[in-house]
Amino acid sequence: MRDLRAQSVVRRGDELVAFLRDYQLQPRFSVGVWYFSPAGNRFHDRYQPVASIEERLERIARLAPLGVVGVEAHYPNEINEANLDLWRQFARQSGIRVLTVIPMLFWDADFEFGALSSPLAPARKKALDRTIRTLQLNKELGTDFAVLWPGIDGYEQPFGANFADARRRFVDGLVEALETVPGVRVAFEPKPYEPRGRTLFGTTAEGLLLAREVESRLQNAENRRLLDEGHALVCLNPEVGHMLMAYEDLAYSFSMVLEAGRLAHTHWNAQPLGGYDLDLPVGMVAPEQLEAGLYALKTHGYGEHFGLDLNPERMAPEEAVRVSIEAIRTALDRINDLDHESIVWAAEHPDRARGWIERYLIRTRALHPERLAALPRPGDMG
Amino acid sequence: MRDLRAQSVVRRGDELVAFLRDYQLQPRFSVGVWYFSPAGNRFHDRYQPVASIEERLERIARLAPLGVVGVEAHYPNEINEANLDLWRQFARQSGIRVLTVIPMLFWDADFEFGALSSPLAPARKKALDRTIRTLQLNKELGTDFAVLWPGIDGYEQPFGANFADARRRFVDGLVEALETVPGVRVAFEPKPYEPRGRTLFGTTAEGLLLAREVESRLQNAENRRLLDEGHALVCLNPEVGHMLMAYEDLAYSFSMVLEAGRLAHTHWNAQPLGGYDLDLPVGMVAPEQLEAGLYALKTHGYGEHFGLDLNPERMAPEEAVRVSIEAIRTALDRINDLDHESIVWAAEHPDRARGWIERYLIRTRALHPERLAALPRPGDMG
Amino acid sequence: MRDLRAQSVVRRGDELVAFLRDYQLQPRFSVGVWYFSPAGNRFHDRYQPVASIEERLERIARLAPLGVVGVEAHYPNEINEANLDLWRQFARQSGIRVLTVIPMLFWDADFEFGALSSPLAPARKKALDRTIRTLQLNKELGTDFAVLWPGIDGYEQPFGANFADARRRFVDGLVEALETVPGVRVAFEPKPYEPRGRTLFGTTAEGLLLAREVESRLQNAENRRLLDEGHALVCLNPEVGHMLMAYEDLAYSFSMVLEAGRLAHTHWNAQPLGGYDLDLPVGMVAPEQLEAGLYALKTHGYGEHFGLDLNPERMAPEEAVRVSIEAIRTALDRINDLDHESIVWAAEHPDRARGWIERYLIRTRALHPERLAALPRPGDMG
Amino acid sequence: MRDLRAQSVVRRGDELVAFLRDYQLQPRFSVGVWYFSPAGNRFHDRYQPVASIEERLERIARLAPLGVVGVEAHYPNEINEANLDLWRQFARQSGIRVLTVIPMLFWDADFEFGALSSPLAPARKKALDRTIRTLQLNKELGTDFAVLWPGIDGYEQPFGANFADARRRFVDGLVEALETVPGVRVAFEPKPYEPRGRTLFGTTAEGLLLAREVESRLQNAENRRLLDEGHALVCLNPEVGHMLMAYEDLAYSFSMVLEAGRLAHTHWNAQPLGGYDLDLPVGMVAPEQLEAGLYALKTHGYGEHFGLDLNPERMAPEEAVRVSIEAIRTALDRINDLDHESIVWAAEHPDRARGWIERYLIRTRALHPERLAALPRPGDMG
Repeated sequence: MRDLRAQSVVRRGDELVAFLRDYQLQPRFSVGVWYFSPAGNRFHDRYQPVASIEERLERIARLAPLGVVGVEAHYPNEINEANLDLWRQFARQSGIRVLTVIPMLFWDADFEFGALSSPLAPARKKALDRTIRTLQLNKELGTDFAVLWPGIDGYEQPFGANFADARRRFVDGLVEALETVPGVRVAFEPKPYEPRGRTLFGTTAEGLLLAREVESRLQNAENRRLLDEGHALVCLNPEVGHMLMAYEDLAYSFSMVLEAGRLAHTHWNAQPLGGYDLDLPVGMVAPEQLEAGLYALKTHGYGEHFGLDLNPERMAPEEAVRVSIEAIRTALDRINDLDHESIVWAAEHPDRARGWIERYLIRTRALHPERLAALPRPGDMG
Repeated sequence: MRDLRAQSVVRRGDELVAFLRDYQLQPRFSVGVWYFSPAGNRFHDRYQPVASIEERLERIARLAPLGVVGVEAHYPNEINEANLDLWRQFARQSGIRVLTVIPMLFWDADFEFGALSSPLAPARKKALDRTIRTLQLNKELGTDFAVLWPGIDGYEQPFGANFADARRRFVDGLVEALETVPGVRVAFEPKPYEPRGRTLFGTTAEGLLLAREVESRLQNAENRRLLDEGHALVCLNPEVGHMLMAYEDLAYSFSMVLEAGRLAHTHWNAQPLGGYDLDLPVGMVAPEQLEAGLYALKTHGYGEHFGLDLNPERMAPEEAVRVSIEAIRTALDRINDLDHESIVWAAEHPDRARGWIERYLIRTRALHPERLAALPRPGDMG
Repeated sequence: MRDLRAQSVVRRGDELVAFLRDYQLQPRFSVGVWYFSPAGNRFHDRYQPVASIEERLERIARLAPLGVVGVEAHYPNEINEANLDLWRQFARQSGIRVLTVIPMLFWDADFEFGALSSPLAPARKKALDRTIRTLQLNKELGTDFAVLWPGIDGYEQPFGANFADARRRFVDGLVEALETVPGVRVAFEPKPYEPRGRTLFGTTAEGLLLAREVESRLQNAENRRLLDEGHALVCLNPEVGHMLMAYEDLAYSFSMVLEAGRLAHTHWNAQPLGGYDLDLPVGMVAPEQLEAGLYALKTHGYGEHFGLDLNPERMAPEEAVRVSIEAIRTALDRINDLDHESIVWAAEHPDRARGWIERYLIRTRALHPERLAALPRPGDMG
Repeated sequence: MRDLRAQSVVRRGDELVAFLRDYQLQPRFSVGVWYFSPAGNRFHDRYQPVASIEERLERIARLAPLGVVGVEAHYPNEINEANLDLWRQFARQSGIRVLTVIPMLFWDADFEFGALSSPLAPARKKALDRTIRTLQLNKELGTDFAVLWPGIDGYEQPFGANFADARRRFVDGLVEALETVPGVRVAFEPKPYEPRGRTLFGTTAEGLLLAREVESRLQNAENRRLLDEGHALVCLNPEVGHMLMAYEDLAYSFSMVLEAGRLAHTHWNAQPLGGYDLDLPVGMVAPEQLEAGLYALKTHGYGEHFGLDLNPERMAPEEAVRVSIEAIRTALDRINDLDHESIVWAAEHPDRARGWIERYLIRTRALHPERLAALPRPGDMG
């Protein structure tokens, strides 16, 4: 199990400066097998042909030179007992490992009224069984964690909904799955809405509350040992677009998860605040959020993967992956070599560095910084 | 052609009071044939079986007693040359007429980069031909108008997009269609986004700008005659959910279209501000917007239909229609018998009626208004 | 100290039905002394004259017959050592008690870069001293809790902001204050933004995370005893407008706080999703949110006050209070006598009650429900 | 009067490429005198001392070397008959001219229920007189236009509001003012909300509808002559933050105004979508919107000023101006020297340039583009 405990260290002053100079984020990427056969949606037909899992894996294998080291898949529609050999062979040959197997808990018509939280016992049972089987697969494959997105656990009509009871069912299910397959980490992915009007545990903070609640219920010896050693078993996989749909600030939300030592994974794309779920290539919208978010990861020494969660509607999946990787790499180029000392000083002395960070950032993004006036160090601005 | 010209009259004072007392909105409803076979979406499978057009029409026919007098359908996937007799027979037997035939300008993969506005000539040609053929069908069937929703005419990436050129292509196409089939009215339906990141002419006001632009370009004699007589040929079909996705205020937006004499139709459902397109049953969200919107319609003497544009995901379409009709009927019950004199007086003397309208509205919605203190007339509040 | 522990009970089925039949929400209201002298803002001058504290209290006293039993005030600008007698006399004569004294932690220019979280030691010290002194005053006056709104603890520029450190300073300060004045409860009030671009702990869920974090740090014997008995010391005061600015769903957010046994108070007004902080009279926007929220309170047996947090810009404060009390009373009238059995059954059997709750709610709000078709009980809908 | 007519030319293909190569946006800036004495707001005290008009002008004069060539002021609180000599002297000595005098139509308590649209005759009269006097001052001073922001012309409660009548009053007033002082151009500035829950004519498109409506009513000979020559008299001053509060896309909205030949001025700052009015320094949020917006201006040959409309709460006004000018200058550096030929080709051939613009933009912003794979020209991407 990956050790995330060091994420929670809070540094300041010289210690933080030294850490920022030292610690470099590693651009190791994972992709999702689902978007290598992009579907249509409620309003338009598919634009690209259906691709088999074999075809998709062949295409993904060719992306390894870009820094793609992991692949993500849902159980059972993408990865399952019948095609496991195919996946193992792919991993051996491409060097791209299965980073996570995700229980498909939203697509099936059985989950019409929710999956783990459904008030209908058969649906809940099916969701639980699938979650358990997926955790087992993660264990067998030696993945890093099981991403879990409760996309269909929600509601449109809040009156009389008895939310506490629905959440309790969800927690009960997740506890049972984790106790049945101990020692497997979950990376919970919140989303505020779509395809439900509202989703349970829809924000990063609600995901953190869930994580604590579930862990407090675990009794299995292996799970208890890991928890007692300070490892988190219920971690998060914040998805950039979902956070922005919820009007969150990336750097702030990442920092909450990091401070809790629970940032097991990250899903990247682009999205305006609000709206519907676009899954655009990284960097297309609000790149300043991307950079601030990455700097928050650097501040806490994030060492996990950069998962690309895209919906390449009008370009080949490979192209969307390339855009996204280039966007993250160039953003890392921008933040790695900054004057961290001055940034930390400015943040800690806002009354003596008014406007400094804004002007400094402009220079780090300028094609011709030499055309701008020289910027004094913060504190010397007069 | 329906005469909408009286909508644009602006009344005030006693004249307005008299009009409000006199004019009653008529609850005449239309439904869309598309949602009688609700599909799945990007995130979940369909929950209801596929229904043929025949089956759908049989189900719709049974809704006539609720006040359903019209049905809406897209060309060519729902209504077309091959099944026209079926539709005619349905209308004769049910008493429910085809209110509008809508060109399907968003679904096809050919429209990947837009329909009437596409920079690709073959797509644009296909969209134009389909629009022309649909206008002809509307003429043949004697509908009230052709709804036109440019759902796929939009963009995700604004840099270098040359929007003026895209809009011009769209206007050119619409002008050509209207000139080819003169004397047919269009009811344009704006939507700010989804399934594109942004849609052209995405708000009510942008729809009004489009209407003026297109009409200013029309030359055909029949079209010119209608325009010279004061009839609008490019009207609007504001869709409640779309307006709320665009953060519009229903009463305000309706009033703009009415003042322009262009409110040919209305599409009703429920939606929070922003978010994705839910098409919930009417009244589930922000019923005060519904009531204020209806009162704006009454203020201008709206006499057209109430189209129900729903996505009944987890209930039978009939049930979603029933909810919506009941919501509109009860809202009409609430606004028809109000003390219009005091409302108008309060609106015209806000400095002497502070809080009056708020307290009055509470009483109109109260189950036990007798439990509340008596409310003086505005002006007597002291 | 008020006992909130029973809030956390989660009921279902018959037990929940019995509870809903039995438990009636009590319309006991509190008002804020600040809005009895409404100020201007950045864009317009004040519309009402400045009123002294004496004048305000006289006006508030006259509201007792409406059900106003509490008043809220900030230290030191509204309530302080010099005018304490005035407040005590007011309480004796009016029967309206001081429900909470709130530390003024946002107005002063010293708090330009935050109060309890400020990186500047003098500001932080001033904020801490003021918080401590306010907790003492709450103790002396026997209030229910100290509301705490960290309005100025936030940021506009996220890059390099070291949020974990800022949150730690905030937590440190709050811990120190609570340990210095043990046995006093805090009711934390989140707000996502305004007057900062973003505020720390800006959502209900983030407030709950803060509550747990602070309590886990408390060592004082009296505090420990209360915590060990299951009482919460850091509770929440969700403010309706703030929740809606954060795009939260009222019923869902309330249910989270109730399930945690931390709903010490509630602040009511009206607000659209997003936008700026309007503090409109209760019920003006989205009354269905109000009703669903109240039903969530009833579901968990909320027995605390209804605080009215208004900004009566264009009406007398008394009028805004009247509107709000009438809105809450009529909403309570609507939800108290419902068919709770059917509501609970429908929520627990969504597959057999499709559309039932929507149609039932329409009837509970209808002026003439007799004009609607009879609604079968859920399960008999066929 | 500035000639804006060439803005409306729509180019494509080679013609557009040639124009983009040829036409350079000129970084000529104007500042607002109001924010050189930043006030507090509803929630916090002022952070900077009050500065007299003289002091402010002295400070502004020192900004001329940055490219500040214009200043904007409100009548009568900032510029008026009594201090006109001061302003004239300032202009002579600094070389910074008065670009616009803006009627103060929102601050006064008299405008509690609106200014030009108020239902109260005395308020409306005062607003009209002030507008007329301001237009005269603009004429006397030879400004480019009178900015007009109807900040207080709005509402919170839409029920029964008779919006058409309110808009008519507004149009009547504006027509009367323009006819009284013919030959003066207005630059109308929409804002969707704040300090009203909703503002009349609150979006760019609604501003364009207003412009057409008002101009269609003008009869004065001088006004008619200008209109007949194709000049617009009612133009727009889109304010970036206001557009983003209304969820508009900058490039799209600018293109609408440019296509209409009505972009008399632009107001720049930074703002997230929605929220409250922040007036942050340019470039802090969503710089990709800034660049796309500037490219739209370049596409239509915008030759007017860049007005900086800031609220420098926690930095000196000079610093906020510097940040903003640097942000615009570096953005212009990025867009001026692009491969316009490929950009235009990609926009016109989206099916053969999938992902190209996204990858190209990443390179234009990269510090080390040489680290990225070479990007083929669009069309050669395979």
